[in-house]
Amino acid sequence: MPIISPILVNPLADGRQSERAMVVRRGVQRLLMEMGASVIPEISLASGRRADLVALTRKGDIWIIEIKSSIEDFRVDRKWPEYRLHSDRFFFATHPEVPAGIFPDECGFILSDGYGAEILRDAPEHRLPPATRKALMLRIARAGAARLTAAEIAGVAIPALDGESE
Amino acid sequence: MPIISPILVNPLADGRQSERAMVVRRGVQRLLMEMGASVIPEISLASGRRADLVALTRKGDIWIIEIKSSIEDFRVDRKWPEYRLHSDRFFFATHPEVPAGIFPDECGFILSDGYGAEILRDAPEHRLPPATRKALMLRIARAGAARLTAAEIAGVAIPALDGESE
Repeated sequence: MPIISPILVNPLADGRQSERAMVVRRGVQRLLMEMGASVIPEISLASGRRADLVALTRKGDIWIIEIKSSIEDFRVDRKWPEYRLHSDRFFFATHPEVPAGIFPDECGFILSDGYGAEILRDAPEHRLPPATRKALMLRIARAGAARLTAAEIAGVAIPALDGESE
Repeated sequence: MPIISPILVNPLADGRQSERAMVVRRGVQRLLMEMGASVIPEISLASGRRADLVALTRKGDIWIIEIKSSIEDFRVDRKWPEYRLHSDRFFFATHPEVPAGIFPDECGFILSDGYGAEILRDAPEHRLPPATRKALMLRIARAGAARLTAAEIAGVAIPALDGESE
């Protein structure tokens, strides 16, 4: 380790965590969009936890991607197995400065550098029961609609996109 | 009819139609939000048509609200019965200067003045088949996510809202 490291020992304490998480998120968003999925951040699950990113594939599969911006950020999260109860596949995503080896083998793993990202380990599939899927899809749809309406009422109209639902 | 009417004979031609439609839309959005529904505009349906407003109730019912800003606007629309195939309830919405009597009795009717709106006739319920509902809910969720992502990438971050999914 160099004497002057760009990575502090506890990045949670340095105020840069959210910036790092945003860089990871942007790469993951791009990757998932290229794969034809639609992506929405910060979805509150029935458990009360928030998923960092939720992807909806064209055929309706629901993936959760949890962003970890540091070793510490992963270590303090003891509840990640819950995410598998709310998704068909679950991935961790991080950046190249976090050792890939800390993430559990039974989860998918995405490496993101902000410009793009790559799935380095696919996630096992654990299909949601139909009633759970239905409730979660409604939750996602309502969250997206509510955010768009709030933006519109605040004066920021977000237009429909060609082919957005295809 | 007064000699000088604020309503032109063919409002479709006067360039004010979209402004009138937006005023109606805003009142309908407020009404539906007060009722606990989330609302998203301009959803492309499987038929290829676009619904002006789609509301998602807390329990997951899907309503379509079609905005008609003038008599002419309603008369040229021969395909409105299709909307009933893509919703649990279907409403027309307009403003006080359009005669309520032109709208079919078998549809719901909402009167909006831009500040608020009122359901003057409830819409009959025609429950969607489960597979249609599932596909439509996915379409709505993906559209919302895609719009939010496009806005975020363009530099307009739209935050999550407290209680947005409840």
